[in-house]
Amino acid sequence: MISEKMIKMTQGGSAIRAMFEEGNRLRKLYGDENVYDFTLGNPNFPAPEKVRTAAEDILRNCSSVDVHGYMSNSGYPEVRSAVAENLNSRFGTDFTGDNILMTVGAAGAMNVILKTLLNPGDEVLVFAPFFLEYGNYISNYDGVMKIIPANIDGDFQPSPEALAEAVTPRTKAVIINNPNNPTGVIYSAQTVTALAAVLERKQKELGTSIYLISDEPYRELAYDGYEVPFLTKYYRNTVVGYSWSKSLSLPGERIGYLAVNPAADDAELIMNAATIANRILGFVNAPSLMQRVVAQCLDEKADVDAYDANRRSLYKGLTDCGFECVYPSGAFYMWMKAPGGDDKLLVERAKKYNVLLVGGASFACPGYVRIAYCVSPDTIKNSLPAFKKLAEEYGI
Amino acid sequence: MISEKMIKMTQGGSAIRAMFEEGNRLRKLYGDENVYDFTLGNPNFPAPEKVRTAAEDILRNCSSVDVHGYMSNSGYPEVRSAVAENLNSRFGTDFTGDNILMTVGAAGAMNVILKTLLNPGDEVLVFAPFFLEYGNYISNYDGVMKIIPANIDGDFQPSPEALAEAVTPRTKAVIINNPNNPTGVIYSAQTVTALAAVLERKQKELGTSIYLISDEPYRELAYDGYEVPFLTKYYRNTVVGYSWSKSLSLPGERIGYLAVNPAADDAELIMNAATIANRILGFVNAPSLMQRVVAQCLDEKADVDAYDANRRSLYKGLTDCGFECVYPSGAFYMWMKAPGGDDKLLVERAKKYNVLLVGGASFACPGYVRIAYCVSPDTIKNSLPAFKKLAEEYGI
Repeated sequence: MISEKMIKMTQGGSAIRAMFEEGNRLRKLYGDENVYDFTLGNPNFPAPEKVRTAAEDILRNCSSVDVHGYMSNSGYPEVRSAVAENLNSRFGTDFTGDNILMTVGAAGAMNVILKTLLNPGDEVLVFAPFFLEYGNYISNYDGVMKIIPANIDGDFQPSPEALAEAVTPRTKAVIINNPNNPTGVIYSAQTVTALAAVLERKQKELGTSIYLISDEPYRELAYDGYEVPFLTKYYRNTVVGYSWSKSLSLPGERIGYLAVNPAADDAELIMNAATIANRILGFVNAPSLMQRVVAQCLDEKADVDAYDANRRSLYKGLTDCGFECVYPSGAFYMWMKAPGGDDKLLVERAKKYNVLLVGGASFACPGYVRIAYCVSPDTIKNSLPAFKKLAEEYGI
Repeated sequence: MISEKMIKMTQGGSAIRAMFEEGNRLRKLYGDENVYDFTLGNPNFPAPEKVRTAAEDILRNCSSVDVHGYMSNSGYPEVRSAVAENLNSRFGTDFTGDNILMTVGAAGAMNVILKTLLNPGDEVLVFAPFFLEYGNYISNYDGVMKIIPANIDGDFQPSPEALAEAVTPRTKAVIINNPNNPTGVIYSAQTVTALAAVLERKQKELGTSIYLISDEPYRELAYDGYEVPFLTKYYRNTVVGYSWSKSLSLPGERIGYLAVNPAADDAELIMNAATIANRILGFVNAPSLMQRVVAQCLDEKADVDAYDANRRSLYKGLTDCGFECVYPSGAFYMWMKAPGGDDKLLVERAKKYNVLLVGGASFACPGYVRIAYCVSPDTIKNSLPAFKKLAEEYGI
């Protein structure tokens, strides 16, 4: 009786979310400390203390209507301006508040921009491996997702040649995610420059506008001094989706923004349409208290050192066992090769040791698994004997 | 270059939101106290003190990961259970937490259930006058909205006969909004019983399931002892969308729920699909801190007496001027007849006196205007001389 599309989805579902529910089941059975759940990008590190003090300050000192009331669908003007100025000071960009739309997380931002851009049948390119949810977001607006295969031999940097081959007259947008979920790879300035050159050339050839949508919830998580290129500086038709989920450990609060490069084609029209899309999709506006909170926390830093310590200990532990991993420069994911190439088998075998992983098929890149290390250091430490047994089972 | 649908929308836009922006402009020009803005359902009364104390308590005493982290897409199990128990104790229903999906406000709930139910071309019936945004929500999922004309001679109670005429084999859902925005009318038990009988009969005749979607952000705002019928008790295939926007004065926070009658056809499938829809539409989950806050505030009451005082003083003031209004039993809207029948003219004329109203065309019911009286008592008092002048201009 219900939507046929949705019936199909209830039969499939998200493998990541399914594992999250499986984790809850196992935790009840074996106790929290005996389950090594590496499935979900749910930061285990607390939000900065400033989140609490800012919230308390706002709740006590601002009027209820100003804190909890409606505002423009695009967000509080002063919050939008603060975000713009913060970006400008960090990246030398020239945003104003008018280029910033406060959103219900990055997932909200992605849906808003896709609703804004896509006509039915428009193509959106993604580079494998990628967050599979993009496929649902694109299909919400009757777009067609085209997957560019993983550049395994090129350290999982997206391939400009493959991009050039994939662009057609129907290409409306390209989504990239930098630092990358699931590989932890940071797309380098060199990669981004090459991708931008392809898109500029294709736009000219085809007489179209191709928007680069940069999904950046992991921007602040970069290690070893790596810099994450800010895309508007490389390519004019860029729109950035951001979330404080990871940087401030607030994934449940659904607070983010969409930044439209003021130099992009139809920038003003896009912002007007995106504001309407934010309303009619039912977001209405980004949660109001959290808008005010993040505006006070723009200079707060994620606990990068803690993630870095996890990254090092997990990488060492896994490679000591004989597993082969991409050494991640950003985000909080380890991308590990499945011995023998069967990631489903690896996920199943790991479950026996209460180790929960997500198979690469969930990122359109079988043969690998994703290990989210936004967990407590103890989880990593205590999981290593299990990984060791797993390695022995594989005879590596 | 962008979505053609969205380009059209930027050219139209929401008259209500446009008036809200106009109000901001006028306030800057003339000062807050000299603009009588009756356009937006933005409660002027503060949230109950308990909202602040609950938030502080949660922020101080729960772990950051438990307050701000991801949870199941359907919401915290304990919050869902608390909502279910609260409904059961008030309305004698038999919900469990499994029937409750926490959502990003009622607008989120409406989008989630429409995404869940609709196949392209499915018809959704609405009774004029209604919140015009429903049309956008329905069209998001390629549904077809069919408007049942206003029952002006029947005190704006929906007409069962008109409903019977409008149902076709493609009718998937009927949306009602009780207490009603914009009329302030409460659909009576008698009305609801008659509507349910029509739907039951039509379901049998046609061999279909027709879902009644009850949008209930105003449920707690009922005056003179009026009771708002709880729909699941009248009609099995009922889904309720709720928001704490009005009852707790939290419209900016985007916190609400969807309640699926456990006795509805495919209730479990609907809940599974709705949970996925919540995720893939980009809501992901209802804002986490606010989920915990509202769970502690389920017994808090809106300041109904304050709204009631506004209702009485505004009704008396307007009718003393000679205007004709529906005497509202619920919500915080006054539905006033435009003298001469031209609501656009009335809205324009009112603007000259810094009085901002929304024309009935914004609710598919020209000839009337909506006056949102969720304002300070002073706004009402000070606006009455302006209404008096307006009445004189009409010679009434």
